[in-house]
Amino acid sequence: MGFERPLLLTQGDPAGIGPELTLRAWLCRERDALPPFATLADPAQLERTASILGWNVPVMPVELSQIESTFAHALPVIPLKERVSAEPGQPHPASAPSVIESIETAVQLVRKGEASAVVTNPIAKHVLYDAGFRHPGHTEFLAALAGQDGNTYHPVMMLWSEELAVVPVTVHIPVSSVPAALTTELIVLTGRIVARELKERFGLADPRLALAGLNPHAGEGGAMGMEDQAVILPAVAALRAEGIAAAGPFPADTMFHARARKGYDAALAMYHDQALIPIKTIAFDEAVNVTLGLPFVRTSPDHGTAFDIAGKGIARPDSLMAAIKLAGHLGARAKKP
Amino acid sequence: MGFERPLLLTQGDPAGIGPELTLRAWLCRERDALPPFATLADPAQLERTASILGWNVPVMPVELSQIESTFAHALPVIPLKERVSAEPGQPHPASAPSVIESIETAVQLVRKGEASAVVTNPIAKHVLYDAGFRHPGHTEFLAALAGQDGNTYHPVMMLWSEELAVVPVTVHIPVSSVPAALTTELIVLTGRIVARELKERFGLADPRLALAGLNPHAGEGGAMGMEDQAVILPAVAALRAEGIAAAGPFPADTMFHARARKGYDAALAMYHDQALIPIKTIAFDEAVNVTLGLPFVRTSPDHGTAFDIAGKGIARPDSLMAAIKLAGHLGARAKKP
Repeated sequence: MGFERPLLLTQGDPAGIGPELTLRAWLCRERDALPPFATLADPAQLERTASILGWNVPVMPVELSQIESTFAHALPVIPLKERVSAEPGQPHPASAPSVIESIETAVQLVRKGEASAVVTNPIAKHVLYDAGFRHPGHTEFLAALAGQDGNTYHPVMMLWSEELAVVPVTVHIPVSSVPAALTTELIVLTGRIVARELKERFGLADPRLALAGLNPHAGEGGAMGMEDQAVILPAVAALRAEGIAAAGPFPADTMFHARARKGYDAALAMYHDQALIPIKTIAFDEAVNVTLGLPFVRTSPDHGTAFDIAGKGIARPDSLMAAIKLAGHLGARAKKP
Repeated sequence: MGFERPLLLTQGDPAGIGPELTLRAWLCRERDALPPFATLADPAQLERTASILGWNVPVMPVELSQIESTFAHALPVIPLKERVSAEPGQPHPASAPSVIESIETAVQLVRKGEASAVVTNPIAKHVLYDAGFRHPGHTEFLAALAGQDGNTYHPVMMLWSEELAVVPVTVHIPVSSVPAALTTELIVLTGRIVARELKERFGLADPRLALAGLNPHAGEGGAMGMEDQAVILPAVAALRAEGIAAAGPFPADTMFHARARKGYDAALAMYHDQALIPIKTIAFDEAVNVTLGLPFVRTSPDHGTAFDIAGKGIARPDSLMAAIKLAGHLGARAKKP
């Protein structure tokens, strides 16, 4: 499998664990057969991080064309214009311009077809807000950057691991807001994007979607809530009418054990914890966040900036490495625009 | 460990998988080192079930005092007054009196101290409703029977496995009703019962409770819902003020992986699926339902009557056997009244 176009890792918050995980991933490149990647960062800041940790990582400023030839002997870095002076564990609004530049540049390059996929390191929204950032989150910012082409994109969060892939239909809202936010239209839109991308990006010929019920026992025929029959069941029917292999609503508690998981390729959950509890229970370190619905491949590790342990060299790189591997596979399939 | 007082298994719905699981458990008594038990059932119906399945299970009508001596060579059965003519997979209201007699007799015997614990086989509520039964469910019926002593009991459902124990604070209600049903008082009452019984019945000196948040990321400081701070946090404080090692609210998605589970003895979840998703994901076949808050030990398998596979001999006995084992351990600790 040749990776003609490289992967790009964004910097993320430079005071978080992103820089050390990037260094660590490069150190594991051979053992874990990682595809070539570069990070969009300040080479001097990465060198300081390596020095603090005592890790032997040669950091090499490069252009895009040099990534593949550099990767075997040094970590390729596409230098930002911004200088980064962050200290591990000390988030500071002064870092915000570099965080944003890294993301914007990565999106520009992947949209021009010069990179195959973007892997984003974690950011801290409150640090960016303090610096004037106005997007609700990382993914919405990516969708806004993508939308500069004049289209509107509906980003869909999928948590992916070798054992289970889950998609929350509603995400970062209170439980009390879920019943009203959950519409047949939203479920159908989400299911359609998931089915399309499982086919186009993951290469599944006929992806199978399992939809969770909202209520205990999927409502038990209306005895424990009406949404399962009134909102979710029509969404399953509509998806099936489009030729998508959708089924449900199923009682959520019996959908996620090993035998049940064999019955579908992705589970659509109705709210955040219904999706994230099962995958983080069985694949806490390895789960990868994949954003579907964007005009490019984007993955990210399934954890935050972890300022409390940044700079100590103890953060586990499993999720970032899984994100890099998955981006490599998906990016290799991605058509050049 | 001597079991002076035997365990009692109720019949459950005789058209479900209860009878064959009871036979199967007896067949596995030596391999799995099960404590002696008797079932409250119709011996003739069990013999018919054994015959249909071609299983060699001698069925022996006994009195309580004969259970231990009989158990090694025959399945001890305390005969019901009711005759049972059910066919596997064919639920019928005519079975309802035997279902109820079995439960009532088991509760009488355990309350008199003549049995150490009750293990209930699954019942079908709709069959009992058709015959005039008026309790919302199995557990509420047990609480009502216990309450004939003049006390009021608040039964608490715990799902238990070797790896994880979870308690849903609210249970069989729609998700839309959860925020209003979730009060600080209910959480404290539940936590108090769980802590007391983990101490008295499970023998933990200082049980540790972990409380889940209701909303994504436990509300993220109010950005995704107020209940975590306004309702759950005061419950944690109140439990701690009573000397109970309670902590939280924690983001529910990161509470249930293997490392996190080492930090507590039982997790209190705020609603049905938040509790049942993690335990059924990792311990689908072995999870046991334990009812806390009753004046006797009651366990049950964590599955239903499964009419669709009854009489075929393919139902997995794991959960009933785990329920029998756990009842044996808890019942051996139970004081005689």
